[in-house]
Amino acid sequence: MSIDHAIRRLRHVLDARVTTARPVLDDHGQNESYFAVTPPDAVAYPESTDEVADIVRICAEEGCPIVPWGVGTSLEGHALAFRGGLSLDMTRMNRILAVNADDLDVVVQPGITREGLNRELRATGLFFPIDPGADATLGGMAATRASGTTAVRYGTMRDNVLALEVVLGDGRVIRTGTRARKSSAGYDLTALFVGSEGTLGVITELTLRLHGQPEAISSAVCAFDDVDACVSTVIATIQMGVPMARIELADTAMIRGLNAWDGAMNLPLKPHLFIEFHGSHQGVAEQAETVGELVAEFGGGEFRWATRTEDRAALWRARHDAYFAAKAMRPGCRVLTTDICVPISRLAEAIAETAAEIDASPIEGPIVGHVGDGNFHTALLVDPNDPEELKIAKSLAQNMNRRALRLGGTITGEHGVGIGKARWMAEEHGDAWTIMSDLKRAIDPNNILNPGKVVEVN
Amino acid sequence: MSIDHAIRRLRHVLDARVTTARPVLDDHGQNESYFAVTPPDAVAYPESTDEVADIVRICAEEGCPIVPWGVGTSLEGHALAFRGGLSLDMTRMNRILAVNADDLDVVVQPGITREGLNRELRATGLFFPIDPGADATLGGMAATRASGTTAVRYGTMRDNVLALEVVLGDGRVIRTGTRARKSSAGYDLTALFVGSEGTLGVITELTLRLHGQPEAISSAVCAFDDVDACVSTVIATIQMGVPMARIELADTAMIRGLNAWDGAMNLPLKPHLFIEFHGSHQGVAEQAETVGELVAEFGGGEFRWATRTEDRAALWRARHDAYFAAKAMRPGCRVLTTDICVPISRLAEAIAETAAEIDASPIEGPIVGHVGDGNFHTALLVDPNDPEELKIAKSLAQNMNRRALRLGGTITGEHGVGIGKARWMAEEHGDAWTIMSDLKRAIDPNNILNPGKVVEVN
Repeated sequence: MSIDHAIRRLRHVLDARVTTARPVLDDHGQNESYFAVTPPDAVAYPESTDEVADIVRICAEEGCPIVPWGVGTSLEGHALAFRGGLSLDMTRMNRILAVNADDLDVVVQPGITREGLNRELRATGLFFPIDPGADATLGGMAATRASGTTAVRYGTMRDNVLALEVVLGDGRVIRTGTRARKSSAGYDLTALFVGSEGTLGVITELTLRLHGQPEAISSAVCAFDDVDACVSTVIATIQMGVPMARIELADTAMIRGLNAWDGAMNLPLKPHLFIEFHGSHQGVAEQAETVGELVAEFGGGEFRWATRTEDRAALWRARHDAYFAAKAMRPGCRVLTTDICVPISRLAEAIAETAAEIDASPIEGPIVGHVGDGNFHTALLVDPNDPEELKIAKSLAQNMNRRALRLGGTITGEHGVGIGKARWMAEEHGDAWTIMSDLKRAIDPNNILNPGKVVEVN
Repeated sequence: MSIDHAIRRLRHVLDARVTTARPVLDDHGQNESYFAVTPPDAVAYPESTDEVADIVRICAEEGCPIVPWGVGTSLEGHALAFRGGLSLDMTRMNRILAVNADDLDVVVQPGITREGLNRELRATGLFFPIDPGADATLGGMAATRASGTTAVRYGTMRDNVLALEVVLGDGRVIRTGTRARKSSAGYDLTALFVGSEGTLGVITELTLRLHGQPEAISSAVCAFDDVDACVSTVIATIQMGVPMARIELADTAMIRGLNAWDGAMNLPLKPHLFIEFHGSHQGVAEQAETVGELVAEFGGGEFRWATRTEDRAALWRARHDAYFAAKAMRPGCRVLTTDICVPISRLAEAIAETAAEIDASPIEGPIVGHVGDGNFHTALLVDPNDPEELKIAKSLAQNMNRRALRLGGTITGEHGVGIGKARWMAEEHGDAWTIMSDLKRAIDPNNILNPGKVVEVN
């Protein structure tokens, strides 16, 4: 019983689709944050649920950890096999199994990405709205309970996964949920697996809610004198019940970065809101009018509109490039990116304290936020060869977690726990964290699935 | 160690707030369906979370089952202590603890009812939208994952509970979730307790999402020649993305019952849709125009509008009285009410098959439905003194469950499992049902909390 033995047995099942080639291992040990490269012992590429079940059974017998892998865009080290074992690369299971246009749902394998799915859906008049920025796999997005720019309107993965097929730690295959829009038939296992970061099961199929492509879409950016005015505008907008599709903050540091990244942006060096309206032509016009009045009330500038599809795409590409734009602000740096989420009434306070602390430190850290949800991010730019800087950045991030809890919020709105936030779970959840561990023990008693993440069971 | 001993010990803690008086026991053994009166051994009235924790600890030590009780409006026998023990009446814990208007949330104790909450909220411009018909307690609604007429717009309890305080089966008190709008910090315990029917913990506090009272509300009824045309209109409406606040079906039998119940209704003897629009004045007008076109396309009649508040209230009171109107169609009858939920594309088929089977039986059974969700109900009217009739009604209900599963749906959209649907859980969930049992064992190892419901652990 060993990892090596597991890999030998897997070769019989998967042939060349299990590999220990160094570049592949290194690739599956990468991450988009500050964690050191942590290669697994092997990488497997299953092509069916049955193969996943076979792999899990073998690994369970051999005590070999299994860490599911999508495209590696998670930000807290979720997919790093830091206890060794097998990286289970799901990207070959990337088919759309059924588009049920009448029911506004789609059944997919976990390895398809959100952009890939939306390309295939284009002709149907439907789309899958969740947009975390990265072109992540749907399986990975479900596993981290991803959300992003559109959650303020369409919810998170929690709200948009109807049903799952999951391979458990002993190789059993279960189905959770149905294609019906709601159910009261027992415990909500779908919600339990969504956000479990691969620690309770391997997602092998997802049924997702779709939404109609809006008749009209309109986007704009708008500058404010300070972050407080941005946030006050957002709070008022949410309270008025305006069904914003997106309402995003970028602080002055981030705007400087975006201007440098994309010369065409050329925005004034002030905090901005990036906003988008979805609806009928009349509805969008009405929303824009309401929000325009609120912007004026809080001293914001004129809307700079992007109504043509290509202009809108450019605007949101810029917003999505925030991570890379931030990284480019300091050539050669690593980015320690972190997110917290607080009740919206405490958001201005949370951002102001965070910004002040970053300003007082030697580190740059632009701030962007899905402010309609009370969620914001910092991208702390550190010299990877300077341990002192990493220490300062980590301390800033820890203070953000502390602040989130003090203000009644959560240590992560959307990035998840992974390795980076593990030590804060007890702080946030108290005894409820021990219940999470009890659930893990009940469902994965051998601790085969992504061990060491989310809960402590040893 | 015994139930009797538990009751004696509880008297020391609760004094007169634990009782074995026959009328009180009988009252807590009632239900609104066909189940026989099943009195508990005692009824306790806690007034604080600490008292609930003390009660649970004593009951755990004595092996005394605990069945939480709200106002007894659940429909599948959830709150019946059919293994004896303590009915935990939560109605004295009925305070609003905090209204956070800026954050659109409210913190309440579990014993407050939804109408009680909305009365208190009226001056804030906010409301809690979930409306299962009965004026149920919020704790009970969370425990059964209730939904009702407005779920098509505002979601179910799953979507509107942000956080919980829960007393576990060993008396520990945990908190799940936060007041932030979203989180990726670990397993979604809130979703696990919502819909767990008191089998995993006793809910002692809830944080609920609120919504802004819409600027404009408009309601209407509209007749169609057949149920198929009703359902086709609903499907088209949902697919167009019209943000319906309510869209409800009543079949011809139900309309006959409603006319008899409330002489002022006087609706033509045809299937009807009851609809409601929420939004800005302009938005509501636009929605009404779109739906009006769809109604015409599917051969529906003119809208009969109810725009004045009192007319709207009368219309929805009539819809909510469907249960009692159905009961009045056959004096002295018991109602076997059951619900299933299917993908909306299969809804017309599901209703047509069900109606045909009821028509071919000797039993009357009007149909109503939250058709925007694919969810519908039958109220099967049986003579309580005729075992043959109850047998036929049960068989009709079992066939509905079978039909729901065949059409890709669920055995219950909103009523829950209780006693009535327990034997169908394995059919719907397969191995996933055994996982539910594993979770129950992990969280309530002594099987103290509402034993025998939702899962089998013996």
